[in-house]
Amino acid sequence: MAVKRLGILTGGGDAPGLNAVIRAVAKVAESAGVELYGFLDGYSGLIRGNFRKMEKRDISGLLHRGGTVLGTNNRDNPFNFPVKEGNELVFKDMSDTALENLRMLSIDCLIVIGGDGSLAIARELTQKGARIIGVPKTIDNDMQGTDQTFGFDTAVATATEALDKLHTTAESHHRVMVLELMGRYAGWIALYSGVAGGADVILIPEIPWKMQKVAEKIFARQKEGKPFSIIVVAEGAKLPDGEKVVRETIKGSGDPIRLGGISYRIAEMVEQVTGFESRATILGHVQRGGSPSPFDRILATRYGEAAAKLALAGEYGKMVSLKNGIITWMPFEEIPQGCRTVPLDHPLIQAARSIGISFGD
Amino acid sequence: MAVKRLGILTGGGDAPGLNAVIRAVAKVAESAGVELYGFLDGYSGLIRGNFRKMEKRDISGLLHRGGTVLGTNNRDNPFNFPVKEGNELVFKDMSDTALENLRMLSIDCLIVIGGDGSLAIARELTQKGARIIGVPKTIDNDMQGTDQTFGFDTAVATATEALDKLHTTAESHHRVMVLELMGRYAGWIALYSGVAGGADVILIPEIPWKMQKVAEKIFARQKEGKPFSIIVVAEGAKLPDGEKVVRETIKGSGDPIRLGGISYRIAEMVEQVTGFESRATILGHVQRGGSPSPFDRILATRYGEAAAKLALAGEYGKMVSLKNGIITWMPFEEIPQGCRTVPLDHPLIQAARSIGISFGD
Amino acid sequence: MAVKRLGILTGGGDAPGLNAVIRAVAKVAESAGVELYGFLDGYSGLIRGNFRKMEKRDISGLLHRGGTVLGTNNRDNPFNFPVKEGNELVFKDMSDTALENLRMLSIDCLIVIGGDGSLAIARELTQKGARIIGVPKTIDNDMQGTDQTFGFDTAVATATEALDKLHTTAESHHRVMVLELMGRYAGWIALYSGVAGGADVILIPEIPWKMQKVAEKIFARQKEGKPFSIIVVAEGAKLPDGEKVVRETIKGSGDPIRLGGISYRIAEMVEQVTGFESRATILGHVQRGGSPSPFDRILATRYGEAAAKLALAGEYGKMVSLKNGIITWMPFEEIPQGCRTVPLDHPLIQAARSIGISFGD
Amino acid sequence: MAVKRLGILTGGGDAPGLNAVIRAVAKVAESAGVELYGFLDGYSGLIRGNFRKMEKRDISGLLHRGGTVLGTNNRDNPFNFPVKEGNELVFKDMSDTALENLRMLSIDCLIVIGGDGSLAIARELTQKGARIIGVPKTIDNDMQGTDQTFGFDTAVATATEALDKLHTTAESHHRVMVLELMGRYAGWIALYSGVAGGADVILIPEIPWKMQKVAEKIFARQKEGKPFSIIVVAEGAKLPDGEKVVRETIKGSGDPIRLGGISYRIAEMVEQVTGFESRATILGHVQRGGSPSPFDRILATRYGEAAAKLALAGEYGKMVSLKNGIITWMPFEEIPQGCRTVPLDHPLIQAARSIGISFGD
Repeated sequence: MAVKRLGILTGGGDAPGLNAVIRAVAKVAESAGVELYGFLDGYSGLIRGNFRKMEKRDISGLLHRGGTVLGTNNRDNPFNFPVKEGNELVFKDMSDTALENLRMLSIDCLIVIGGDGSLAIARELTQKGARIIGVPKTIDNDMQGTDQTFGFDTAVATATEALDKLHTTAESHHRVMVLELMGRYAGWIALYSGVAGGADVILIPEIPWKMQKVAEKIFARQKEGKPFSIIVVAEGAKLPDGEKVVRETIKGSGDPIRLGGISYRIAEMVEQVTGFESRATILGHVQRGGSPSPFDRILATRYGEAAAKLALAGEYGKMVSLKNGIITWMPFEEIPQGCRTVPLDHPLIQAARSIGISFGD
Repeated sequence: MAVKRLGILTGGGDAPGLNAVIRAVAKVAESAGVELYGFLDGYSGLIRGNFRKMEKRDISGLLHRGGTVLGTNNRDNPFNFPVKEGNELVFKDMSDTALENLRMLSIDCLIVIGGDGSLAIARELTQKGARIIGVPKTIDNDMQGTDQTFGFDTAVATATEALDKLHTTAESHHRVMVLELMGRYAGWIALYSGVAGGADVILIPEIPWKMQKVAEKIFARQKEGKPFSIIVVAEGAKLPDGEKVVRETIKGSGDPIRLGGISYRIAEMVEQVTGFESRATILGHVQRGGSPSPFDRILATRYGEAAAKLALAGEYGKMVSLKNGIITWMPFEEIPQGCRTVPLDHPLIQAARSIGISFGD
Repeated sequence: MAVKRLGILTGGGDAPGLNAVIRAVAKVAESAGVELYGFLDGYSGLIRGNFRKMEKRDISGLLHRGGTVLGTNNRDNPFNFPVKEGNELVFKDMSDTALENLRMLSIDCLIVIGGDGSLAIARELTQKGARIIGVPKTIDNDMQGTDQTFGFDTAVATATEALDKLHTTAESHHRVMVLELMGRYAGWIALYSGVAGGADVILIPEIPWKMQKVAEKIFARQKEGKPFSIIVVAEGAKLPDGEKVVRETIKGSGDPIRLGGISYRIAEMVEQVTGFESRATILGHVQRGGSPSPFDRILATRYGEAAAKLALAGEYGKMVSLKNGIITWMPFEEIPQGCRTVPLDHPLIQAARSIGISFGD
Repeated sequence: MAVKRLGILTGGGDAPGLNAVIRAVAKVAESAGVELYGFLDGYSGLIRGNFRKMEKRDISGLLHRGGTVLGTNNRDNPFNFPVKEGNELVFKDMSDTALENLRMLSIDCLIVIGGDGSLAIARELTQKGARIIGVPKTIDNDMQGTDQTFGFDTAVATATEALDKLHTTAESHHRVMVLELMGRYAGWIALYSGVAGGADVILIPEIPWKMQKVAEKIFARQKEGKPFSIIVVAEGAKLPDGEKVVRETIKGSGDPIRLGGISYRIAEMVEQVTGFESRATILGHVQRGGSPSPFDRILATRYGEAAAKLALAGEYGKMVSLKNGIITWMPFEEIPQGCRTVPLDHPLIQAARSIGISFGD
């Protein structure tokens, strides 16, 4: 059966490179004479039949643009979809509507660019008969089944630039500067930007740490004539026993940033234990915005090209993946569950320790 | 009397361009065959006799480097200086020591690069007989007596870049993004980067605002097919009556960042009033770090050159100043008191209103 | 007579900030309930009746975008316009067609954003009865009648960044690096980025120079333990008597870059006279591209807002202008002729000399 | 035998990340209680006994700094070393002096960071008994025996940024912009930045091309409503039969930039064949300067750490290497000869073709 029409949607938090994937898919589709329908705002557009045909001019200038022109959201789940009943919002399984819409629009294959959540939904829809190709996406780089996700290199660049900036203040004021970065469950961004940005201490969810060890590093530097230090902390890094974050989470919000705030508590602890003046900064959403780095533009382009090729070849139910520098794919059901955390023996952790970076352990 | 030796110190918070001033002073001094002594860590180095002779290699590579190689602090005041007595810290007037050290070291003129606080001290020391030239410094751009301070252009660039990044997330997620910028008393950074970064709402200390007006702007944009908005807020912007910031200031700290947090409350209010998903980011110390912009390198160089020339000419008790693009100077006693806030009829406020930016009033 | 419809076009070489002007004009027009027609590709669109109505979505995302969405060209002149006659291209006075088109489309006022050439045409059309407002534009900053043009600050930033990069190579290899920048008649970009980028020698059209003086500076630095130097040269800087550029201009081209190449000859001369290994780089078109700096976005916005306001007020025949930080305007006929070169006593030249920068004189 | 003293030198053209390697080596050495001697200006310092002991303060602030604090040069070869005899410069085999100096200074192992040339020398010295570890370096990414060299990612970022800037000019003026990038023998930089920067045509040494094919791509874009194109060309790309570069190489110079100039000829050919106005830019030395990207800082740190570890373990005669993301090593004699060119079936070439990029073939 010849493929005539593809669909595409972006789900979950935005990441630099989403538009580059869309552009690559559109270019391959076009040269194959295949139409491309873009569903708006994630799965929401698929349920509500909210879409637009992607024309040449829709993909012009997309390569270097952050965000997603299709819109996204990190809530709407076809299997638990918000529907208004009278004045109330109730959550219903609308997955049949999703499949029905794909059929009615004669979408031969849907390309879903998303993270854990979006691809888990893609897998469930596949089990119900939908023809879907997945493209992995998260700036946190913690997805199973692929070596790297686009957006991560850009986030690391933004974080490293922030570290470069904090360095001059730390040095000028003889302070300890604490930078809090994204990473609820995995410390990839903190680890990479910490090494790239010359951090003295890196605290990540994977490695339990003690304030005393952090203080030792700060004092050791002082002894060497460097009365200032930089601490990088992933938002999901756990505080040592008995400590908790003072700043309250604003009620009803699931926002990673509002989860954050651990850096303020760490800065306070550093002041108490070492006597060094300390300051905290939460980099927040700035990490996920902006124009993608060259690496991310290339990775996103390669993912998009591969996904479109699979779709044209009728190879459904698979996620494209980067393995040892090669783009390949794996069936949805073979993607390991859970979050890809930083292995404790990761070469970069080893290298970091060798050059004297402390992980607080 | 021929000048043979100059002194220099940097006081208050660090700002991009401090090193460029130091470099310019050193270059002028050197070509005049005059020595330059750098006091370390602000006035502290002057009281404690902590200094170093600035050699050629000390100023190599300084132009583009953020922070200050002399070190700084924003606490130590010669008129109220922390001195250890036994196990206690008591505060004493040590200004005579400052003058004595200048005499003993045969410093013909001391160049003080600093903000309101540091220059007020410079003025007091002058009244006691010290020979001082002041160079105005603050990233906030709120100093009296000069049209612009170095560091401001760089801070605006950093804030504008953050806005560019938040834009893609706001647009992709149909969110309201709130960015909190420095500016305790004046809204210069928020105003300039808000206009440059395409903000829809700018909230500054100078203009009282109402949530209802902010909501109207957000709804007006939604009606135009733009279901997302960017709000820029200066940390010192006052909340409307009856509102207060939920996040607590950490005890005993005078840090502007910890003062901040208004953005979180505003994001919460926006969600409540408009129903739009909202997110807050506090840019924090990142604003004052990094390599100075070309404009700031040039301004800092001009300030430094002018200050050194005045010092060599024996013209003491003055602050260098930028007026209508020309570097000039004014006596310490003629510098108006207080903070230079944004005038309500400032041309950029007018222009901003004309292109539809709301100030919440 | 109430204004109902404005026109707008961009002429001459592109500059960062053109889109920001267009956006500001469109926003003011819209809030006044006035239509805006954009003519495409400079005066060409006006003669050929090639235009489009600017809708809200046309100006979305324009603020930070380089270039011009209206297109431009630096050839087409209504008074000497290329017209096909049979197989030949002949040049005719088509200015009556321009006026006729403005009338037929009921354009109450045309806003022309352009450089010397485009505004001279605007003045001529005005003399024939057209209602035009001019907005000055050139990255070279050499236009009469205004203190600064948008695009200049961005070009200086790009050039300064290139200098920062060349510095590390110069230092590592003990070389003399020569960077050639735009500026056929005036040395503004070379002067500003030279000071901001830490150049040792700056060569501009305004100041005749001698190779011997350049060599002296290079040797002086060597003696101080700095066996490397950076030379910045404006493409229009004249070679000393008897010297000429070796690289040939490609036949029939009037491109400033191809005019360039003086840097290669200077690098060769430096090698011959000093023995230092030397390298030349022509930065070229990269200088006029990219996202405008915050300063340029603000200046362009203010220009656009002021131009639209004048147009709405029926104040034709004027160019908006920046004077001492204030946006004002002047009648076309009062704009001085010629190019605004760098005055020899410009404060930045003085400051540059004071910190030891050589101008080769 | 316990290692007590290491040596280090940097050879060949500078590359972003050299300082990060030096810093990592120094940190590992220090924590092992081993001294580090830095030879200045490549092999020259080894022959002339020009070195300095690397102290803690020598490596402060190195991570983000471009170039090499040790100095480098791309001429001096111990086996063919320039020696003054009377007034003449003669070239002699001084390799015994190199070995003698290593012995006299009790250097247990020398770490050489360099490209093809420097490491070929290292191999020869090893054959004569020297104990050397090599670290591969080239921004061109064309070294055998490793998957990637530091400096490449930064060069690609600089080139991509230039492409982003040229894009706005191309689009605004309906021009063809030709950007010439480094790569005498291999097209890595052109390929990667071409894909990342949205080039329409990429011309590299590995793929013979025809002007007619380039013109076809330009016309195809015009037909699609995109009357502008971007061509990226590696300096070493061969012109089609019968064509040659007009610009002459300056006599006696082996500089890659001066080799360049193919872009000017291509721009001319494009004008002749397509009638499109065309412009050429040679990015030149700007590509090898500046602060290393986060990726390059990390790669350089890992290389440095691994090299120091090998040296401490007494594992000489090896080059560290990146293979599938893991740092490993290979004996000098197993490194394949010649230049690592881009394979014609490289995945990125395939992906580029799939999204419509032309290679002119």
